[in-house]
Amino acid sequence: MRHFLTALLVMILTAHIAIAQSQPVLNLELANKIADAAQEKATSENWNVVITILDQGGNLILLKKMDGTQIGSIEVAQLKAKTAFEFKRPTKVFEDMIKGGAVHLNTMPITAVEGGLPIFKDEHIIGAIGISGVTSVQDGIIAEAALKAVSLN
Amino acid sequence: MRHFLTALLVMILTAHIAIAQSQPVLNLELANKIADAAQEKATSENWNVVITILDQGGNLILLKKMDGTQIGSIEVAQLKAKTAFEFKRPTKVFEDMIKGGAVHLNTMPITAVEGGLPIFKDEHIIGAIGISGVTSVQDGIIAEAALKAVSLN
Amino acid sequence: MRHFLTALLVMILTAHIAIAQSQPVLNLELANKIADAAQEKATSENWNVVITILDQGGNLILLKKMDGTQIGSIEVAQLKAKTAFEFKRPTKVFEDMIKGGAVHLNTMPITAVEGGLPIFKDEHIIGAIGISGVTSVQDGIIAEAALKAVSLN
Amino acid sequence: MRHFLTALLVMILTAHIAIAQSQPVLNLELANKIADAAQEKATSENWNVVITILDQGGNLILLKKMDGTQIGSIEVAQLKAKTAFEFKRPTKVFEDMIKGGAVHLNTMPITAVEGGLPIFKDEHIIGAIGISGVTSVQDGIIAEAALKAVSLN
Repeated sequence: MRHFLTALLVMILTAHIAIAQSQPVLNLELANKIADAAQEKATSENWNVVITILDQGGNLILLKKMDGTQIGSIEVAQLKAKTAFEFKRPTKVFEDMIKGGAVHLNTMPITAVEGGLPIFKDEHIIGAIGISGVTSVQDGIIAEAALKAVSLN
Repeated sequence: MRHFLTALLVMILTAHIAIAQSQPVLNLELANKIADAAQEKATSENWNVVITILDQGGNLILLKKMDGTQIGSIEVAQLKAKTAFEFKRPTKVFEDMIKGGAVHLNTMPITAVEGGLPIFKDEHIIGAIGISGVTSVQDGIIAEAALKAVSLN
Repeated sequence: MRHFLTALLVMILTAHIAIAQSQPVLNLELANKIADAAQEKATSENWNVVITILDQGGNLILLKKMDGTQIGSIEVAQLKAKTAFEFKRPTKVFEDMIKGGAVHLNTMPITAVEGGLPIFKDEHIIGAIGISGVTSVQDGIIAEAALKAVSLN
Repeated sequence: MRHFLTALLVMILTAHIAIAQSQPVLNLELANKIADAAQEKATSENWNVVITILDQGGNLILLKKMDGTQIGSIEVAQLKAKTAFEFKRPTKVFEDMIKGGAVHLNTMPITAVEGGLPIFKDEHIIGAIGISGVTSVQDGIIAEAALKAVSLN
């Protein structure tokens, strides 16, 4: 009985340590699903956009530029995703803050325009999506539709 | 005769497909004409400016700094052309949006000052012009005069 | 009938002029095909790489990072594609030149490592592919396999 | 008489100071002449290059990209001119030094490839020319032909 309890304790502690030392990741398969959902939504609305996905380290793992999208969106889509990832919030939050008077935030290394969303799983940030190409409100609609299409939790 | 007409039709359709998969370009000859018109307008007004022309890939193919123009305009003229090219619209559009309250656009990688215009041919963007050196309104007047001087469509 | 043929001839010549002043493009559909072929080759060899495709303007229109690829390859794959596009030649050409003694080329803004190839169609450069993740020879094998899988001419 | 001599002395000294505080300049007219000579030489050889001219402050005052020149030459031509200007010597000097064993110069912020030449007038450096597009030896031939075509001293 004593040995059994000791073994149980070891198992629980090991599991706990294992959980504490790992984080969920965003792999290419999931990124493809998110990007496909984004492209499907954009196509259904006849919108052209650049779609970017960052992983749990904030690294670009997927980028697609739909035909006809303005060239500037290649950089902007990445910047929106970067801002959403680095500050764990939708870029629209910063947009609203600046529009609401917090104009000093223009000095921050952020892109405060709707269309960037962090991606969470079990309360961990596992990446971000950045959309650019149409109006920022439309960019935001695509980003939200893309994340809704996959079940992360 | 019938075979001849069929062959002709095939040739026309083939050419049409080739056009659909290609885009018009802005060569040095056209860039020179646009820049000469810009310089002529500037000279007639006794203004000094830097003139920049980007091609269909957004690459700098012509730059001229008129004597006496402030040094900062060498970079600004290029940035205005870049913004007009990358976002397919006059830089004044962004200037007006930010002046009108969309101050969060200050976080975008754009130069939101009048004087940059995209260049279109048959609904394709084939380049951009950027002017800097005098007031931004005057820069804009030169850019417009330059594009009006050449017939693109 | 004569007027009809004349009209046809004019149409054909007009189309021809339009083609002469334009260049072929690399769209997302073609980029997807090339990237899929690259990923298939990499998977078959059990290699992990980042795949990047630039379009006819040298702009990034597709990027995919296969799971497990080293993070540095995200930038290197883009740099290889950039070098291949900007100098219209395989990056291996520069690698061989530098290895062969032209060490002053290390001061050039290039990435002289195998794995980047320009993409041509009808003698026009329409883009480039950049691969990074395994050895540079293996990166080059993937790039070549990817372009061979699509018929461009 | 005394007042006259004093006045004369003041005039001479003022003139002397004025000369000491000025430097010859490279204006757009001269830059155009140099660039035209470069383009003429390139055309006569059926070569395509980017031509760049810097002024006495090292600022870009003229850039022309001949049709068909590789995109990378837009940056490289500027870098060659910058190196020639900043170090008051032909870029080939650095190329030869590195090829000759001084490989540590690869850590310098220079572009050590033939095709960049400083422009002197009365022992003052008044600018630089940078050529890129064909082989570096050919780039150098164009740069030399361009400067020979204008009489600077």
